[in-house]
Amino acid sequence: MALKKKPVTGMRDILPVEMQVREYVTNQIRNTYQGFGFTQIETPCVEHIENLTSKQGGDNEKLIFKILKRGEKLNLETAQSEGDLVDGGLRYDLTLPLARYFSNNGAQLSMPFKALQMGSVWRADHPQKGRFRQFTQCDIDILGDESSMAEIELILATAAALGRICPNNGFTVRINDREILKGMALYCGFQEESMDQVFIILDKMDKIGMDGVKAELLQAGYGQESVEKYASLLDQTGHDSVGVRALGQVLEAVMPKNVADNLAYIMETVTDVAETEFALYFDPTLVRGMSYYTGTIFEVSMEGFGGSVAGGGRYDKMIGKFTGKDTPACGFSIGFERIITILMDQGGCALGDRQKKAYLVEKGMDSARLGDIMRQAMEERRNGMQVLVSQMNKNKKFQKEQLGKEGYTEFVNFYREGLK
Amino acid sequence: MALKKKPVTGMRDILPVEMQVREYVTNQIRNTYQGFGFTQIETPCVEHIENLTSKQGGDNEKLIFKILKRGEKLNLETAQSEGDLVDGGLRYDLTLPLARYFSNNGAQLSMPFKALQMGSVWRADHPQKGRFRQFTQCDIDILGDESSMAEIELILATAAALGRICPNNGFTVRINDREILKGMALYCGFQEESMDQVFIILDKMDKIGMDGVKAELLQAGYGQESVEKYASLLDQTGHDSVGVRALGQVLEAVMPKNVADNLAYIMETVTDVAETEFALYFDPTLVRGMSYYTGTIFEVSMEGFGGSVAGGGRYDKMIGKFTGKDTPACGFSIGFERIITILMDQGGCALGDRQKKAYLVEKGMDSARLGDIMRQAMEERRNGMQVLVSQMNKNKKFQKEQLGKEGYTEFVNFYREGLK
Repeated sequence: MALKKKPVTGMRDILPVEMQVREYVTNQIRNTYQGFGFTQIETPCVEHIENLTSKQGGDNEKLIFKILKRGEKLNLETAQSEGDLVDGGLRYDLTLPLARYFSNNGAQLSMPFKALQMGSVWRADHPQKGRFRQFTQCDIDILGDESSMAEIELILATAAALGRICPNNGFTVRINDREILKGMALYCGFQEESMDQVFIILDKMDKIGMDGVKAELLQAGYGQESVEKYASLLDQTGHDSVGVRALGQVLEAVMPKNVADNLAYIMETVTDVAETEFALYFDPTLVRGMSYYTGTIFEVSMEGFGGSVAGGGRYDKMIGKFTGKDTPACGFSIGFERIITILMDQGGCALGDRQKKAYLVEKGMDSARLGDIMRQAMEERRNGMQVLVSQMNKNKKFQKEQLGKEGYTEFVNFYREGLK
Repeated sequence: MALKKKPVTGMRDILPVEMQVREYVTNQIRNTYQGFGFTQIETPCVEHIENLTSKQGGDNEKLIFKILKRGEKLNLETAQSEGDLVDGGLRYDLTLPLARYFSNNGAQLSMPFKALQMGSVWRADHPQKGRFRQFTQCDIDILGDESSMAEIELILATAAALGRICPNNGFTVRINDREILKGMALYCGFQEESMDQVFIILDKMDKIGMDGVKAELLQAGYGQESVEKYASLLDQTGHDSVGVRALGQVLEAVMPKNVADNLAYIMETVTDVAETEFALYFDPTLVRGMSYYTGTIFEVSMEGFGGSVAGGGRYDKMIGKFTGKDTPACGFSIGFERIITILMDQGGCALGDRQKKAYLVEKGMDSARLGDIMRQAMEERRNGMQVLVSQMNKNKKFQKEQLGKEGYTEFVNFYREGLK
């Protein structure tokens, strides 16, 4: 039987040129986050199927790659359903595994715990351009800090990382709070139990605009008055911290006052302290899909590219699902693959300055001379240079072109006769 | 339903202190190998089940984590066997995926292709101390170079990496050639078809000694004369390159003469050129388990630690299984987890020299002052320092002890009153 050359559906081989960009970005992110005191950790790629299907993951739970039980646990003949066959699955994000990790290892971690994770996750989405079934996520999370210091540090660190990776791309951070979303809806007369549907419609704002949102709300049966009041409140609200504080006054009767003050304070401190310049504004229409968010939510977009490049928020209730005791938690995730796509589209990026030299050695070189060549290479490597010693191909021109693409700028030919 | 806190059986959470060692080792290996012109690549963690069960992986094929088909492809009611349920699996090594990668992307790669891979692999072994079901492998491979330049570069690069990671641990490289193994057995009167069994017994040499090997060979029904001749040939053979050349003379009638010369030449050149000092010797009893090896094989052991820390060899026939056309290939794999265990047992390792400072901030700090503290942290981070800004816990002494374990050496306390 001939073996299959292509990767499995929706997953991909990463070629050397892209790999260099990925490594560069990984290093920038890691160095920046570590500078902020985030500590790298790792969890297994496989998780208990019970955890993966515990309703923390929303629609992602439909996309799990499930792993067959092994040995005596697997009994095909008596199996009635998938549940009888499967006991694990590939993780669909890094947040759920982090919550498990924290509940398993909390006693050995410094508190508040600032975690950095970079790893693969898997989702069996329909394959399409730019969307793959295995992809990398880069997450930072602060566990055990209920104060807004967590949000401030997360935004500062992510902004610093993005500023270093893409120094030429301006970016915008939009911020909101689930409590404000809720407060605005209550204030306008929507009922508590209809919130989820209202937010799903509101979330379409950037696609269908205010008129579209109004139409869908009316179509879903909400009262004209509520919908008009909602539209006009959204329209009148200012997007800076002053606007947020003013909104806090308006919503006083339906929302704890400190929610708006807290958000305004985060915005002011971040703007005041950040090392990179970027736009930061309050977006009362920002929803973010995951149902586990309980407080602030944020999302970053980059100039000239649709969609978000990073996002996150506060999820104070997830860890309690493991431990029985709620622990404040807040996280930010960089869309690693999105960043790589942007950089590759822009023709790569600065990749460090190690000089790359290729020694091309004609086939059948005599032994003594090959030893000399290799000794010379070792000497140059000791001096910090990247030296490739490679057989010389018949088509030397093509070989040099290929190596040029990988960043080799200097070539030395060694022929059998002993002349360079 | 309460969620599960422990990782799945046989896999593990990696704590911050070990993670720092892993990151350090990863960087050392990557930098060293890149200095030798190896190019990093990545393949998906999931492979076609047909490739994983194609008899390239020996016993590892019994240990595959299998992944359930998805959607319409999965039909529980008509499924007769595992094959009807499964279409993918987690890779058990990085060599088979590399062969697939090369056959899929060859046209876009420089030739000879020098690949570096660092990634997770999965084997459903019985969990036991120091053996896990998910672990990291670090492989370098040279594809398309039939000359001994490949072996020389692989050994030099791996020795350089090990020398940098564990500068205080002497190590030994043992080398052999599958052709020599075969030649010696033929010379002593063993039949071609009994080779596999003879080598399996020979491979036990370090456990049961020469007497044990002789006893097992006799017990397996091999002639007294052959066994005695074999034992005495093994005993008389020298372990340096002179010994190898002499053995080549002895085996002249049953083995191509260049096999011994080639091996002797590799040994001489490596010894001559290496940047690190290490013992390199010919071990005519070295077998290595994988059936895919076709020529030279090598294995590295470290002083004071049983078992090998790295190993590899030439496998000229695997890529042909994908492409229909044989391509010379030779690889070396560092036992990453073994190295980490050794370093952790020795109490960690040098971890870079970025200074680590922790700002501990009392709860309820007023806003203006918190802004000042964060601005100060950003300033120190810009100067290259790692600065953790963290809530101050009630038990400050314990908090500092914990942070000390992660390498924080300097602490600054910020109290609400505004005094440091």
